[in-house]
Amino acid sequence: MVELTEKILTGDIASVARLITLIENNREDAAGIVRKIFPHTGKAYLVGVTGSPGAGKSTLISEMIRVFRDRGQTVGVIAVDATSPFSGGAVLGDRIRMQKYEGEGVFIRSMATRGNLGGLSRATRDVSYVMDAMGMDIIIVETVGVGQVELEIARMVYSTVVVLAPGMGDSIQAMKAGIMEIGDIFVVNKADREGADDTLRDIRGMLRYGSDGGNRRPEIYKATATKGEGITELVDGLERHRKYLNETNLIRKKIYDKEQLLDLIKERVEKRIFDNRGGEEYFEKYVERIVMREIDPYTASDIILEKMGL
Amino acid sequence: MVELTEKILTGDIASVARLITLIENNREDAAGIVRKIFPHTGKAYLVGVTGSPGAGKSTLISEMIRVFRDRGQTVGVIAVDATSPFSGGAVLGDRIRMQKYEGEGVFIRSMATRGNLGGLSRATRDVSYVMDAMGMDIIIVETVGVGQVELEIARMVYSTVVVLAPGMGDSIQAMKAGIMEIGDIFVVNKADREGADDTLRDIRGMLRYGSDGGNRRPEIYKATATKGEGITELVDGLERHRKYLNETNLIRKKIYDKEQLLDLIKERVEKRIFDNRGGEEYFEKYVERIVMREIDPYTASDIILEKMGL
Repeated sequence: MVELTEKILTGDIASVARLITLIENNREDAAGIVRKIFPHTGKAYLVGVTGSPGAGKSTLISEMIRVFRDRGQTVGVIAVDATSPFSGGAVLGDRIRMQKYEGEGVFIRSMATRGNLGGLSRATRDVSYVMDAMGMDIIIVETVGVGQVELEIARMVYSTVVVLAPGMGDSIQAMKAGIMEIGDIFVVNKADREGADDTLRDIRGMLRYGSDGGNRRPEIYKATATKGEGITELVDGLERHRKYLNETNLIRKKIYDKEQLLDLIKERVEKRIFDNRGGEEYFEKYVERIVMREIDPYTASDIILEKMGL
Repeated sequence: MVELTEKILTGDIASVARLITLIENNREDAAGIVRKIFPHTGKAYLVGVTGSPGAGKSTLISEMIRVFRDRGQTVGVIAVDATSPFSGGAVLGDRIRMQKYEGEGVFIRSMATRGNLGGLSRATRDVSYVMDAMGMDIIIVETVGVGQVELEIARMVYSTVVVLAPGMGDSIQAMKAGIMEIGDIFVVNKADREGADDTLRDIRGMLRYGSDGGNRRPEIYKATATKGEGITELVDGLERHRKYLNETNLIRKKIYDKEQLLDLIKERVEKRIFDNRGGEEYFEKYVERIVMREIDPYTASDIILEKMGL
């Protein structure tokens, strides 16, 4: 275990991959290693990238990787697929596009939802600690859409980039409420297509009426990732946002919020219930009694917590 | 409190509205009343209705209400807006369309996300108990899209109806993975528009390659809700699905699953932490120490749980 921890800190890829698998499976030995590497984290800059399917996120991210590498920075990518907790994996299947830059100084890993959202957030956060500890300067967390998952991810990164493409007007409307809140930077990708300026104008209009509590107004960029256009400007924009967060001291607040510790506590309560011998059967017995209306869910919760000593 | 409980059971609208507000605010007295009404629940049939914005869900639901009422059944509607935990309310603003049938035997309530997803699920479930206890025969839970929220809702209803409209091919593709798993019944709404048959074929194609573990294949309907067309057939389809669930005994399994009890337990752990005097400050102290890298999150969780007696 000590050996694995040390190998992580030296950036050994095989060890990192092994640890991430342990984290995904919520293994207690993974928690042990995260404890050990945690003091070595906090150096990486965390960037969230989100947007509808078809907006060109993967291509954009691969171009961002290129620019960051040109500037001498190492890049980790965590592609979070939360579209389906059951089948997993469809939408981010095209992350293969990113892999052309995989290699020295670049580490890409995709994660599918297993179990609940809290578990996914915890796992994503832990993987970001691993990539941070192994020495990645930039960690990009990719998600699809603007749902609860994206809001959770936005809470754990410093800068959130929302990617849009021309001709997706309806989805902009639909995402409106969510977008206003999570986007630090907006990118109209596929800017060589018809309607790019309309999309740009739509976003501007939305932002004008939106409110981020009177703070900084998000910046909007145009890019054509397939041609590598506009990427340098986007990365410069990210650097500016980083500078802004540092200067306003907002970055510290963003590093770890209350909700994240709470998620972890809840997940550990669950783990303790089921790690007990016979925990599963004990639990199922109460579910059965609720179904039969012999007991209500609140009373059942209280009994189970009491039994655990709470 | 006893009085409020009794008034709920007699279907007093003002009392029901008051209780639902208490539930949304996660008040302990709400939990007390849910405990009392719980033995009177389990009679209502729970239906989930989901689909993209613009698919015409609200109009479809109002027509479903009409058909159910014609058949002598009372209907409760819970419109869950999970698009934004902060601002809330944009997408379901058009639920006004449903209200033309509100009145005797119809009760409509919208809920916005407050706090986390687990809290929303718990509140939605509790509100369904209230509508059940007040005597609603059918309870429709409306959500927007196919994300984590919809998957959670699908877990707490008996039949899930996925509503689609012609010309939304892209979104079908995007939702594909999720749709396969949550749809018991599909409706192509706005069937008088061009492309309705294409949409129908798309869905058929998707379902052919999907897998629901070898069980029942979902039924697909066409409807034009604005003209009231196809609604009777849809409601008949729901009745058939209900019969199927009853006959295969799947309905009992659907009433209350393990995850739901677990969600409630976790929420109650959180409540206990913060209901303690000084709980907030105690908690924040650990967040601060994590930010400073003086302690790791896992160790902090263990200390807090230990302090609580776990």
